[in-house]
Amino acid sequence: MDDLKWDEKGLVPAVVQDAGSKDVLMVAYMNKEALDLTLKTKTAHYYSRSRQKLWLKGETSGHTQAVKEVRIDCDNDTILLIVDQKGAACHTGYWSCFYRAWSDGWKVIGKKVFDEKEVYGEKKTH
Amino acid sequence: MDDLKWDEKGLVPAVVQDAGSKDVLMVAYMNKEALDLTLKTKTAHYYSRSRQKLWLKGETSGHTQAVKEVRIDCDNDTILLIVDQKGAACHTGYWSCFYRAWSDGWKVIGKKVFDEKEVYGEKKTH
Repeated sequence: MDDLKWDEKGLVPAVVQDAGSKDVLMVAYMNKEALDLTLKTKTAHYYSRSRQKLWLKGETSGHTQAVKEVRIDCDNDTILLIVDQKGAACHTGYWSCFYRAWSDGWKVIGKKVFDEKEVYGEKKTH
Repeated sequence: MDDLKWDEKGLVPAVVQDAGSKDVLMVAYMNKEALDLTLKTKTAHYYSRSRQKLWLKGETSGHTQAVKEVRIDCDNDTILLIVDQKGAACHTGYWSCFYRAWSDGWKVIGKKVFDEKEVYGEKKTH
């Protein structure tokens, strides 16, 4: 793990891919603690840049990610997690955070899986 | 496109996924010019942080990426490109830059497609 090139904030981006569908679900950021915990628990942990703290994905929603594989890129500065996604990855209720595609404007093309108000109430978070 | 949240360096990360296999190929960075050119030419352009200049993926190797779809994430700060990859994505000769997985150390699990010395000679670049 010493090979990893953390950025000036001590983070690396992590791409998250669903193991079954191979859909790209989201990109989040990890610090060393998040990566260590992810490897130890086989459940995805990240570092929230907005809340500036460690974050167990699904801690509020229950939409956790069971980690099947952890990969690293050629430059040692990006992680790829291959996961079994419970529920949906996106806090907006979409299966993937990448639910909009460009076609003379951003058009919704993704699948909505849950109602974010029912899951989070007024508090919106991943 | 004005919706995009560029970082303090004017960049956003772009995850690149192969349209056919759905493999995650690489993560690169785009500035506004790279994204505009990508949309205009339907061929992936990035901004090289190490060389500090616009970069047509495949300009040296011929391993260009024909862009089928451009997606954006819920936070408007990450791009997903869905592409037809010519040759291989990684300058090391592997199909994907994510050719190593963690298993008490990083183990090569990816497929080597070309010999980087034959393609690039002594000069190694994406």
